[in-house]
Amino acid sequence: MSVASADGAIGIFDSGVGGLTVLHALRDLLPREHIIYLGDTARLPYGTKSPETVQRYAAHAAGWLMRQEIKLLVVACNTASALALESLREWVAPVPVIGVVDPGAAAAVSQSVRQHHLVLATEATTTQRAYTRAIRALRPEAVVEELPCSLFVALAEEGWGDDAVAKAAADKYLGTIRSRVSADRPDTAILGCTHFPLLRGVIAEALGPEIVIVDSASTTAAAVVTRLDELNMRNSAQMPGRLRLVATDGAARFARTGSAFLGQSFGPGDIELTDIHPSDIANAEAQ
Amino acid sequence: MSVASADGAIGIFDSGVGGLTVLHALRDLLPREHIIYLGDTARLPYGTKSPETVQRYAAHAAGWLMRQEIKLLVVACNTASALALESLREWVAPVPVIGVVDPGAAAAVSQSVRQHHLVLATEATTTQRAYTRAIRALRPEAVVEELPCSLFVALAEEGWGDDAVAKAAADKYLGTIRSRVSADRPDTAILGCTHFPLLRGVIAEALGPEIVIVDSASTTAAAVVTRLDELNMRNSAQMPGRLRLVATDGAARFARTGSAFLGQSFGPGDIELTDIHPSDIANAEAQ
Repeated sequence: MSVASADGAIGIFDSGVGGLTVLHALRDLLPREHIIYLGDTARLPYGTKSPETVQRYAAHAAGWLMRQEIKLLVVACNTASALALESLREWVAPVPVIGVVDPGAAAAVSQSVRQHHLVLATEATTTQRAYTRAIRALRPEAVVEELPCSLFVALAEEGWGDDAVAKAAADKYLGTIRSRVSADRPDTAILGCTHFPLLRGVIAEALGPEIVIVDSASTTAAAVVTRLDELNMRNSAQMPGRLRLVATDGAARFARTGSAFLGQSFGPGDIELTDIHPSDIANAEAQ
Repeated sequence: MSVASADGAIGIFDSGVGGLTVLHALRDLLPREHIIYLGDTARLPYGTKSPETVQRYAAHAAGWLMRQEIKLLVVACNTASALALESLREWVAPVPVIGVVDPGAAAAVSQSVRQHHLVLATEATTTQRAYTRAIRALRPEAVVEELPCSLFVALAEEGWGDDAVAKAAADKYLGTIRSRVSADRPDTAILGCTHFPLLRGVIAEALGPEIVIVDSASTTAAAVVTRLDELNMRNSAQMPGRLRLVATDGAARFARTGSAFLGQSFGPGDIELTDIHPSDIANAEAQ
């Protein structure tokens, strides 16, 4: 595979709109970079599916982005980062791959006093225990609890991140943690799904003021900057970079639910729809 | 296509486990029939996806069942019934196809005094207004309101059908209906998604005692019996029929979430996993 050029785009994918929180942080730090965002909305969510299926879907999404000649791949989906990162790295080399799990783990370690962490994520992510491994690679003595909170995804998608239903769900998932004695409580809570920043308020309220909420979007964006600088791959243009928003299904829904994640309003006309063809499947499975 | 034989199986599909409520009703009425249930768990949910994508997925599922030489096809998913029934009918003819929308509409009409109906369903189903058309075909003067309640799907999948979170969600979706003056309130509420029977209690409570809850599972099963009798296609064997439970992903999750829908416990070992191959896609798209 040819080495990508510095004026190539950064490719970023997620199962849906959640990764737009990472895109938002990336554009703040790297306004001159071209970015292509792919949301695999025809097959979302990834978080309740099996490792084999998530790996297959992630390979299709990465394959589509590679055909756009990207210079760096960001896996903005925690589930795909937890289940498919190593196989994607091998597959797209020498194009570098940044996931959200390692940056999130590093951020939590740096903000924790007692190295007792709580990871809130999808069922697929928690089953894989990727955050536990990433945190223990930095701090072998760390205590890590991983808690699946599947309903938070649906609440964020419904736009109900800060209402009575979200509060009731946060209390149900997290109520027993707050009621523990202080020494048994985690001191960080990692938002281990890109949908969860939309419920940050109710999560913080349910956990109480002594637990620091850690969000991997901004630390992932910082990791991208570091990597581009190491490789001397920043775009040297002076103009603002181009943004392409691409989805595999449902432009209207993508625009409606995505605007809250991106932090700016956009419409169905701003979305390109694409298909992941059977030829992608053949390519991915031939690897 | 050859005419199916009376000892062939009834094929039934849904995006996931929700259609097991229809399977449950079918087995009660037709204990001697062989039944193959296919849950397309690798691509669920259908209810938030576009009409084109739902039609494609439904064609793949039906195509897989047709290769099992079924004698009748039940589309147990409201979204697929609303968006894909006519194209499936043409495609699988002369095998008869029964969806859940027409039986649900007929049940609502027969139980309503004022012919003012409320349809609770997924976003894709309500956008299509299939229940409105089905009810008006029977009663042109009927008033039909369709209300998307996407979060109910996630609540049912999480097994949270009857707790504080479900109550809060039901109040948020339905609270304003109960507070209307009596003459403006619907007198039936159709559970227009196979997941929703698991939230029947909180839905009934939020709507109040004057609104009759209509569930299409049992009326769909009755429609299957009628159709088999019309075609003289009942299985004449004396032994109980065989049941195959098939999913496209995640046997463990299917078993865990599905048992509540089927009303009996089963394990991952009871599920066959299958793939819907690219050859299915080619066949479906060639139609």
